[in-house]
Amino acid sequence: MDRILEVDGDNRLMVVQPGVTNQAVQQAAAKAGFFWAPDPTSSAVCTVGGNLACNSAGPRAVKYGTPRENTLGLRAVTGDGREFRTGVFTTKGVVGYDLTRLLIGSEGTLGIITEAVLRLTPLPQAKRTLQALYQDMESAAAAVSRIMAQPVTPCALEFIDGKAIAMIRSYSEADLPEDAGALLMIEVDGSSACLAEAAAAVTEAARGKGCLEVQEASTPAEVERLWKTRKALSPALRKIAPKKINEDVVVPVSKMPELIGGLGALGERHEITIVNFGHAGNGNIHVNLLVDPDDRAAMKRAEQCLSEVFDLVLSLRGTLSGEHGIGLDKLPFVDRELDEVSLELMGGIKARFDPAGILNPGKKIPFQRV
Amino acid sequence: MDRILEVDGDNRLMVVQPGVTNQAVQQAAAKAGFFWAPDPTSSAVCTVGGNLACNSAGPRAVKYGTPRENTLGLRAVTGDGREFRTGVFTTKGVVGYDLTRLLIGSEGTLGIITEAVLRLTPLPQAKRTLQALYQDMESAAAAVSRIMAQPVTPCALEFIDGKAIAMIRSYSEADLPEDAGALLMIEVDGSSACLAEAAAAVTEAARGKGCLEVQEASTPAEVERLWKTRKALSPALRKIAPKKINEDVVVPVSKMPELIGGLGALGERHEITIVNFGHAGNGNIHVNLLVDPDDRAAMKRAEQCLSEVFDLVLSLRGTLSGEHGIGLDKLPFVDRELDEVSLELMGGIKARFDPAGILNPGKKIPFQRV
Repeated sequence: MDRILEVDGDNRLMVVQPGVTNQAVQQAAAKAGFFWAPDPTSSAVCTVGGNLACNSAGPRAVKYGTPRENTLGLRAVTGDGREFRTGVFTTKGVVGYDLTRLLIGSEGTLGIITEAVLRLTPLPQAKRTLQALYQDMESAAAAVSRIMAQPVTPCALEFIDGKAIAMIRSYSEADLPEDAGALLMIEVDGSSACLAEAAAAVTEAARGKGCLEVQEASTPAEVERLWKTRKALSPALRKIAPKKINEDVVVPVSKMPELIGGLGALGERHEITIVNFGHAGNGNIHVNLLVDPDDRAAMKRAEQCLSEVFDLVLSLRGTLSGEHGIGLDKLPFVDRELDEVSLELMGGIKARFDPAGILNPGKKIPFQRV
Repeated sequence: MDRILEVDGDNRLMVVQPGVTNQAVQQAAAKAGFFWAPDPTSSAVCTVGGNLACNSAGPRAVKYGTPRENTLGLRAVTGDGREFRTGVFTTKGVVGYDLTRLLIGSEGTLGIITEAVLRLTPLPQAKRTLQALYQDMESAAAAVSRIMAQPVTPCALEFIDGKAIAMIRSYSEADLPEDAGALLMIEVDGSSACLAEAAAAVTEAARGKGCLEVQEASTPAEVERLWKTRKALSPALRKIAPKKINEDVVVPVSKMPELIGGLGALGERHEITIVNFGHAGNGNIHVNLLVDPDDRAAMKRAEQCLSEVFDLVLSLRGTLSGEHGIGLDKLPFVDRELDEVSLELMGGIKARFDPAGILNPGKKIPFQRV
């Protein structure tokens, strides 16, 4: 069974085997006064190896970064069975090429990670939770840009669009006004003495044209009540569309209104209900196409719609995936984002790390180039 | 002439051509309320292209990271003249392999960078400067570990060892007590209202066994006076040893006392004066061997000494270079740090990016493997 091999608070690092869950890492780190920044919603069940393979980060990435910014080194095995080490045990190091980040996010296609040196961050003293409501997505996205342009970076900046709010209103007891077209959940962390000021700065940035209200939770019960809205979303979605298509595109923060507007238009044209929420501070949007995979006509429309969604994302300087990865499903779209030369170089790297093509075959990079 | 192509505060990014100086980037970013985290001491003359090629970061890396953590994407040309793009315009993105970080720190051996998308950070409102003196390096290094283990990460945490202090005392007017065996320069930044508390937290961590005094600058003139000590060092070194050998090894922060102690012993054994200073928060030590290259006997002793310095660094889980790179001089030592399999994989990558081996030939990776 995989284990945590070492927790070294003096050097802000932890050495783990990849089968350990993210939650186990957080618990061991917390005992020493630290956390590991990547913290996907699936923390209780997802493994560090999975986090590294997909570069999965979760809400805290907006302030603390993804696995790429929070991993110092790796031990791994190539496709032809050769073990090697990458990176360092320090926060700086430039000997050799950066194989650490090359392996992170490679979805297991370049090597099997057998050990990781994680970079830890000291736990903040305290946290505050805010909820802001907007009349429309334009206003919310403008608020996100304002929040991200001032010096207090939130440790979570999540959003829910109007369709998702309507859904939560119908399928849960969450109390949301009729005219709310977008919602932001904002968390700031830091030292207890500074937090009031930090929350005030973020609240000021959150307010502006189209803002209906900003609420701050002042008790743990209120924090729970605010998060209840956000957490009501997934069950509501599961009730309506148990087998929905869930994407995780990313666009520059300022392009979110254009994306959300464009997604609305595409949904109407293809008669597909699209519900959006996600990590607004990173412009990382979970685009949910609510279709029943047993309905062939709807699936055909959804397929065409998805293809146009990806074109829209790329036209806005975006990227097809923020942390869910490519796998098999998104493979046909990769060459819309990556140029021919990059794909050839990646194919060349793959061939060197996995000459026989046995590591997660046919995934991540279009097959014919590998 | 290379130019800044775009400053986009809404999305915290900047697009630049590589010949622009770091200082020009900082000035353009500051106009929009931002900075680019990498900020080497040579900012006025070094180019962004150079910063990216070496992953050079300077003092702020301890809080804000190196170019690898602060670059979103690149445009580059391979050794066989093919142009390609890497990365994204967003803070998340997992399509394809991470060629951005592969190029960063590759010292120009994989591709010629022609454009970079830099990630910007909002300027903090204010900064405070502290100077702490210790009776010996052990006490100072223990203080660095304590400072790095609490939640307020300084934006600079520099150190100077006892030999360097003695040198400054002899060659400048800086006022330093006779019994000071190590000095830390510490800066904290943040919002004006929180800074007093942040400085207090860092001061508390800086105090402890072996601490002689902690001073905080309360006026710009005092800040200047404190930095004067640090800045007196390079001119003093130039006077004594105009052609000194300057390394930039890195060890885990808690191993610094062992390293500094070991360097003292090696210096004595080989009759070479070694003076150390550097970025303590990253464990990145500038090891200066004060030798005259025209003195053949001394150079021979220095060579042997350096070889043992590198062995010592590696025995402490360190790395041979934090940001100065490998170039030609450190090439013979690379295979002491990197394993055979890694070197072969790196050679394979090099062969794909630069089939004829014309990009910065013979540097960075031991030649026979490329």
